Amino acid sequence: MTRKPGRPFFANPGPTNIPDSVLQAVAHASIDFNAPEFLAVYDAAMAGLKRVLRTDHEVFAYTASGHGAWEATLANLFSPGDVVLMLDSGYFSQTWAAMARALGLEVRTLGADWRRGADPAALTAMLREDAGRRIRAVLAVHNETSTGVTVPLADLRGALDAAGHPALLLVDTISSLGCIDVRMDAWGIDAVVGGSQKGLMLPTGFSFTAAGPRAMAAHAQSRLPKYYFNWSNMLPRRTRSFVGTVPTSLFYGLAESLRLIEAEGGIDAVTARHARLAEGVRRCIARWSDAPGGGPHLYCTDPARASDTVSTVVMPAGHDAEAVRRIASERFGVALGYNLGDLGVGALRIGHLGDLNEPMILGTLAALEMALAIAGVPHGRGGVAAAMDFYAAA
Amino acid sequence: MTRKPGRPFFANPGPTNIPDSVLQAVAHASIDFNAPEFLAVYDAAMAGLKRVLRTDHEVFAYTASGHGAWEATLANLFSPGDVVLMLDSGYFSQTWAAMARALGLEVRTLGADWRRGADPAALTAMLREDAGRRIRAVLAVHNETSTGVTVPLADLRGALDAAGHPALLLVDTISSLGCIDVRMDAWGIDAVVGGSQKGLMLPTGFSFTAAGPRAMAAHAQSRLPKYYFNWSNMLPRRTRSFVGTVPTSLFYGLAESLRLIEAEGGIDAVTARHARLAEGVRRCIARWSDAPGGGPHLYCTDPARASDTVSTVVMPAGHDAEAVRRIASERFGVALGYNLGDLGVGALRIGHLGDLNEPMILGTLAALEMALAIAGVPHGRGGVAAAMDFYAAA
Amino acid sequence: MTRKPGRPFFANPGPTNIPDSVLQAVAHASIDFNAPEFLAVYDAAMAGLKRVLRTDHEVFAYTASGHGAWEATLANLFSPGDVVLMLDSGYFSQTWAAMARALGLEVRTLGADWRRGADPAALTAMLREDAGRRIRAVLAVHNETSTGVTVPLADLRGALDAAGHPALLLVDTISSLGCIDVRMDAWGIDAVVGGSQKGLMLPTGFSFTAAGPRAMAAHAQSRLPKYYFNWSNMLPRRTRSFVGTVPTSLFYGLAESLRLIEAEGGIDAVTARHARLAEGVRRCIARWSDAPGGGPHLYCTDPARASDTVSTVVMPAGHDAEAVRRIASERFGVALGYNLGDLGVGALRIGHLGDLNEPMILGTLAALEMALAIAGVPHGRGGVAAAMDFYAAA
Amino acid sequence: MTRKPGRPFFANPGPTNIPDSVLQAVAHASIDFNAPEFLAVYDAAMAGLKRVLRTDHEVFAYTASGHGAWEATLANLFSPGDVVLMLDSGYFSQTWAAMARALGLEVRTLGADWRRGADPAALTAMLREDAGRRIRAVLAVHNETSTGVTVPLADLRGALDAAGHPALLLVDTISSLGCIDVRMDAWGIDAVVGGSQKGLMLPTGFSFTAAGPRAMAAHAQSRLPKYYFNWSNMLPRRTRSFVGTVPTSLFYGLAESLRLIEAEGGIDAVTARHARLAEGVRRCIARWSDAPGGGPHLYCTDPARASDTVSTVVMPAGHDAEAVRRIASERFGVALGYNLGDLGVGALRIGHLGDLNEPMILGTLAALEMALAIAGVPHGRGGVAAAMDFYAAA
Repeated sequence: MTRKPGRPFFANPGPTNIPDSVLQAVAHASIDFNAPEFLAVYDAAMAGLKRVLRTDHEVFAYTASGHGAWEATLANLFSPGDVVLMLDSGYFSQTWAAMARALGLEVRTLGADWRRGADPAALTAMLREDAGRRIRAVLAVHNETSTGVTVPLADLRGALDAAGHPALLLVDTISSLGCIDVRMDAWGIDAVVGGSQKGLMLPTGFSFTAAGPRAMAAHAQSRLPKYYFNWSNMLPRRTRSFVGTVPTSLFYGLAESLRLIEAEGGIDAVTARHARLAEGVRRCIARWSDAPGGGPHLYCTDPARASDTVSTVVMPAGHDAEAVRRIASERFGVALGYNLGDLGVGALRIGHLGDLNEPMILGTLAALEMALAIAGVPHGRGGVAAAMDFYAAA
Repeated sequence: MTRKPGRPFFANPGPTNIPDSVLQAVAHASIDFNAPEFLAVYDAAMAGLKRVLRTDHEVFAYTASGHGAWEATLANLFSPGDVVLMLDSGYFSQTWAAMARALGLEVRTLGADWRRGADPAALTAMLREDAGRRIRAVLAVHNETSTGVTVPLADLRGALDAAGHPALLLVDTISSLGCIDVRMDAWGIDAVVGGSQKGLMLPTGFSFTAAGPRAMAAHAQSRLPKYYFNWSNMLPRRTRSFVGTVPTSLFYGLAESLRLIEAEGGIDAVTARHARLAEGVRRCIARWSDAPGGGPHLYCTDPARASDTVSTVVMPAGHDAEAVRRIASERFGVALGYNLGDLGVGALRIGHLGDLNEPMILGTLAALEMALAIAGVPHGRGGVAAAMDFYAAA
Repeated sequence: MTRKPGRPFFANPGPTNIPDSVLQAVAHASIDFNAPEFLAVYDAAMAGLKRVLRTDHEVFAYTASGHGAWEATLANLFSPGDVVLMLDSGYFSQTWAAMARALGLEVRTLGADWRRGADPAALTAMLREDAGRRIRAVLAVHNETSTGVTVPLADLRGALDAAGHPALLLVDTISSLGCIDVRMDAWGIDAVVGGSQKGLMLPTGFSFTAAGPRAMAAHAQSRLPKYYFNWSNMLPRRTRSFVGTVPTSLFYGLAESLRLIEAEGGIDAVTARHARLAEGVRRCIARWSDAPGGGPHLYCTDPARASDTVSTVVMPAGHDAEAVRRIASERFGVALGYNLGDLGVGALRIGHLGDLNEPMILGTLAALEMALAIAGVPHGRGGVAAAMDFYAAA
Repeated sequence: MTRKPGRPFFANPGPTNIPDSVLQAVAHASIDFNAPEFLAVYDAAMAGLKRVLRTDHEVFAYTASGHGAWEATLANLFSPGDVVLMLDSGYFSQTWAAMARALGLEVRTLGADWRRGADPAALTAMLREDAGRRIRAVLAVHNETSTGVTVPLADLRGALDAAGHPALLLVDTISSLGCIDVRMDAWGIDAVVGGSQKGLMLPTGFSFTAAGPRAMAAHAQSRLPKYYFNWSNMLPRRTRSFVGTVPTSLFYGLAESLRLIEAEGGIDAVTARHARLAEGVRRCIARWSDAPGGGPHLYCTDPARASDTVSTVVMPAGHDAEAVRRIASERFGVALGYNLGDLGVGALRIGHLGDLNEPMILGTLAALEMALAIAGVPHGRGGVAAAMDFYAAA
């Protein structure tokens, strides 16, 4: 295969860009995970992770990807036949729901227009109808990576409160944590699921659940079979995490990525940057959409909910998103995300999370704009220029 | 903490030494795991892994440590209440048994002298008694990392055959694969469990099950709840492995470690080296044991079953293995393994697997011999010299 | 200092971007430079270097930067009082001339309009006037990094031939080799000077002279004092290079960078890419220049000589190039080159050499275009778009 | 070539072991060497280097190996025909003398028994005879890497003082700096030459001269031709070092190696470790020497001057040192130094400097002891054990 010159641009919201210094930190020699040298790194990294989560609660970590943390969270909280309510938001909410069913839970779904996500008022109404309080938990995907829509967690909390319903609130923050504000304790979230490979800027390899006191109480009653993911097996361990070998190398990486977050000015500075960079992406897409007969446009229709980490871009009818994506990759070395789930339209996704700056985003948008031209997709000219105007003024 | 100068020696059979070039390969930038560039690496790595396993069967991989692969294997093969027979060999067999019980299986145990491991004749006898053929599978730990004892897999296969029992044969090769001969297909093993962090010389991060046709048939009947580890969810995927994000960086590492194995002369050369290096370790320990009143000696009492990857060393009565271990670590930067499980004696463990050569082993043994002296543990003089004599003559 | 997020963009023609795999190769453990393992790497790297130089002649390498190779070349070829003719082209030709004078040579200069470089006809004329054949060598900088002007080497060769003058032709290819075509043997160049840190995509650390038979004959007569750089001290060595310790780590890097060049399709593919990327840069600058009263424009006035590795951009009168450069660095993390030498105008330089692709260039140009806007420098809109149009059509 | 498994042991006093974290630091992306981010790293590294040198004087650095720094030092201090006095100590003193002659200096030599190095009283006598004060400088190699002999610098200073001679004292500390105590200012050394690739634990790539006020005064008078190495060209630069591109990557490495020195407890802790490790090596060699008819023994005959960084080991007559060296390399992956210079005996050299600990040394000595056995070289048994006894008791 002929080498593509230059650094590949990774704008796929799958995993994310990993800073060089984090890659180097991950390339750490083997170390005894019970050695004091390692435990000091581990403790500091876990404390930093709690700062990112804005929680003081327990965190259980697994050698697993985000899907493993989903399963761990369900297995630790529920018993066969328990009822959970999934806020339908797209591919990832549907997959998590399918997993819950496979594990023996009864899954109810609150439908929503995927282009804007869950309606808190509808959630309140549905919970009020659950007179028998059979719903044990409401499950929400904070930032749906397939659609590029972020739901306001504080509003979801409010919806449960308004209904006076005791269900747990479980939130998947896999593609938001470290990039979009998450306030576990202040917002009364009972369990938060996250992974290493997005805002924490690490390779895929570990994931975790933060569990508040109501989640711990539910865990004590849970009867779903489990061992590898069983929190009760982790609590006696010095690390209070992991059954089996600890993935030490990723904790050296985490320590470094937390250092980078602090060096940038802390998590607030990082989320502000994501918001700024994302706004430029949206300005670019808005310009593209301004074509006779319609051009590529944002899938998300609610500006207040447009994701700061991923933008799903719908192609005008009759144009093939996958062809555009392939051109960007093969001609320009820019990896974009493909369509995921049944959006009913042709789309591709731009990941804009992790270790990013303006020139990286603009290089990515330029490649996509050129790919649109090459593929013959009608689009308003000047998308990249619109993003540049915004960044220059910001 | 004051820095210990020089390269740390890692002789803990937890994970193992990772070659520099593998660490570098792991430090790979993020890549779309569906991109052709990655899939080529993945396919080659999986083909190489099958060569190490000496199998043509299906391999399912998980983002998980070895304990995760244990759970995956059980969850994919069995249904609640199924009976399995565990060959008791030490800490790891007991942990795997505890996991099986936690998942709802009925676990029977074939006891053994841990210092030599399972007796094939006793296995045949026990299987013959199972007139109702209720035992669905025999579970064996090939190389028990806690005791340093390796059971002969071909003999176990023979024991099942002698009993004419249809139980599956499941084998954990976590601390043997890539170091000690494993011939899955030739020896009729139905499922083999392995992980990244030992003989494959990678960081902890992924593990896998190789499954033969009888295991696939059992999987089709299995009713234990599962999703993350469900083989049926993996088969339709291009990679035929992983639910969720693929840990791409480790596959770059695996490609490199497989290249190193080939560059050394192939898997036979690597297992021969492990045998040679281990024999030197045993010569050293034998010399130490020759002290008035007894010195440190090998836990394993059957020379034919002494492990080529880990040696468990029993301290003479009244002497503290942990104190010796700490001295080796704090004074000389050599990490040894601690006692694991209820051996009934004080012991420590020397890991001698992965990317090792004579000077690394001799540096390790020298540090341990000095630690014995410092701790005042009686021991025959000249252990390191005995190993040197063997290596010089080999 | 607050961390700037994301990958820094390096567009300073000082050193150049180093591919990740080259950085990893450079991070090689110490090795005996006389060991067969290293000598195999060395020999292959030197053979590859000769392919890039398109020469079969001897190559002498130094642990030194490019300035060291300049000095080595002079010291090995000349004696005190020897006359050399420098083709004046800008800062680097002037520095090399100053060095020659400091070493005791008599330096004559052929003046030129720096915005287009040396005139071959004037060179022929000047050589014809040298009836006594006192000029021992003509010294030319192939690609003047300060001005962004490339002189045609074949034409220089022709100029010497037309005059029938026996002077040696010495060429500095430090910022062209590996990016712009250099044909040492075909073009009759007697000595070529190059360094590691530009088109070879390595850190600063070694440099070299390729010397043809006429240069070797001159060396035999040379009486300038020298030892560290003395070719005669190198010839008996196995490496036929280096006095003292060999910088082994850079040769592992060179082996990798040569592999990358081959993987891209060979040196012709690489130079073609440089030409294509540079043309996009020039289209962008041309668009900027189209402002009422004049905008930023290329320093080079001869399109046929515009450099494919560096573009020197002149600011409109009254506007501060350094302010623009600082904004690009501080706001957007893009490092551009500053003004070097007495250009008589305010300018900055864009380096576009080494391991680059379209999105990297476009991110760089976007940052510069934003910096122009922020600094209030008048410029035609749409520079980046012009480059994109070119790349999409290319 | 078949891969040798495990980590190579590097005990060649050529360059030295480079810690992993230094290798990673060196693998730094390109950066503008005038950028504030780099200058901060540079300044801190240079300040740290002065702490290692124990000097407040000016330091000039070159992109060059140690031989380049030799030449730079001579070229900056002297004029054609100047007389210098070289203290003959072995291969490196002879090479430096040859260089001085090649540059046009008149070199006188104070002979010495290489097995113990220069006699201060003889130096005083020779200086007293120089009634005309023609000797401009005394040149000494602090630690002669070919013989493994260290001369006491304070005694040399005393010898000059006793003679009341104004000659400069120039010292090569290439293989001692950072490992053996060097006190430039306290001991009145006028110029110190050092390099990156030994006690500073870096790859080969830069070297330097520290110059006191008397050296600066000599520089002002110097007329040897120079440009690349000319201190006067460096002083106006922000870095006060380097003509041409700065080797930035090595300064990231230096910052890290200085951090490691501090983390170990500072330079005194590091020199104490070198002394302790070296004593173990000598105990081992002493044991080997105790063979009927004589065994391998230390070349250095003065215990007070035995080097703490390199031990030259003489083989008993009729035995081939090179064969032993090859066995250690080919069988055990241990790189030892070969014989350098006309010692008149067969010898090999053990490097024991840089990032080392007891198990690394013992693994090296074990490999050498096995190689002696394999090669049939008579030697006292138990060399490694003798070193172990010393380290355990230390």
